[in-house]
Amino acid sequence: MSLDGGLHVGVFVFDEAEELDVVGPFEVLAAWAEHSAIKPHVSTFSVDGGGVRLAHGMRLVPARSSDDVGPLHLLVYPGGWGTRRMLADRDHLEWLRQVRAQTPVIASVCTGALVLAAAGLLAGRPATTHHDHYDDLADLDPSVVIDTEARFVDDGDVVTSAGVSAGIDMALYLVSRLESREVARAVCRELEYDPDPLF
Amino acid sequence: MSLDGGLHVGVFVFDEAEELDVVGPFEVLAAWAEHSAIKPHVSTFSVDGGGVRLAHGMRLVPARSSDDVGPLHLLVYPGGWGTRRMLADRDHLEWLRQVRAQTPVIASVCTGALVLAAAGLLAGRPATTHHDHYDDLADLDPSVVIDTEARFVDDGDVVTSAGVSAGIDMALYLVSRLESREVARAVCRELEYDPDPLF
Repeated sequence: MSLDGGLHVGVFVFDEAEELDVVGPFEVLAAWAEHSAIKPHVSTFSVDGGGVRLAHGMRLVPARSSDDVGPLHLLVYPGGWGTRRMLADRDHLEWLRQVRAQTPVIASVCTGALVLAAAGLLAGRPATTHHDHYDDLADLDPSVVIDTEARFVDDGDVVTSAGVSAGIDMALYLVSRLESREVARAVCRELEYDPDPLF
Repeated sequence: MSLDGGLHVGVFVFDEAEELDVVGPFEVLAAWAEHSAIKPHVSTFSVDGGGVRLAHGMRLVPARSSDDVGPLHLLVYPGGWGTRRMLADRDHLEWLRQVRAQTPVIASVCTGALVLAAAGLLAGRPATTHHDHYDDLADLDPSVVIDTEARFVDDGDVVTSAGVSAGIDMALYLVSRLESREVARAVCRELEYDPDPLF
């Protein structure tokens, strides 16, 4: 896939996707565009292009539908309660397998990994998910090698993050991998992502 | 203000508010509801209740308008490029002063503090903002005592956070202050907010 037209990033959204799973990586990747020489274009898309109601009730209107999002270099697949519906949807899993065959990197956040597993995309691979859902991941595909320590796992063309906020770390890592550590540091500084958790 | 009907939290949104400034605190405060004995209700609102286009193009449809959001215990005011328009809008600043008189806690994220300063709400108080905008804050109100070290500053009825992701830390702190450290820890664990920045 050529980068002549820039690097295309799609953040998939669906009903009851977790708000921060969507917006953490979106923020990092959109901020990347302002610091980047490789022109990432970041947009959200839903199955039909219609608005979605996220897990805590936030309503978001995506930029595109699955049909018009076009070829992607990076697909971000968030988690949230809505993954239960997605992983039981055979048509959706078939779509995901087709996208996977054409997309250099697929990156799940939190329980987004469960949908990837249901589609067979994590078979025999190292991966992670939200810490409350390791068993669900193992049930969906016992061949997944679950990493219970990492905030994200890079297995090349498939990257998975731990729960919710770990999607921010994964996105910063992807900026580093896809462009440079220097640019990722600039994004990190801009977002002041250097938390000192109090708890 | 009674808490009989639960604790009401409003996250104000406007065109070109920064995505993570809005959704970081929203996520924390909405997740709080699931762990809380004091029934926080969290909703987004815009001036007229209409949809907004955030700083990086994400379109959000708020739950309410300023007129129908009702009395709040906590107002979250995000930052982003759109604050330039808000801080030059005299009607909006007057609205903010009125809300401030009726709202126990107003909490700004990032450059949201510039709007609070323009409304006179930070006069003589300690506060913070995004690290690129300390001078802008001082220009708007030289009496603000700018804390360039803290991720957030609690001045009682007004709380301000540093840039973008610091809004997450501030929101976790507010859960701790308004309910308990134990509940804040539960939210923190659920969101797996314990980053190990790589950069």
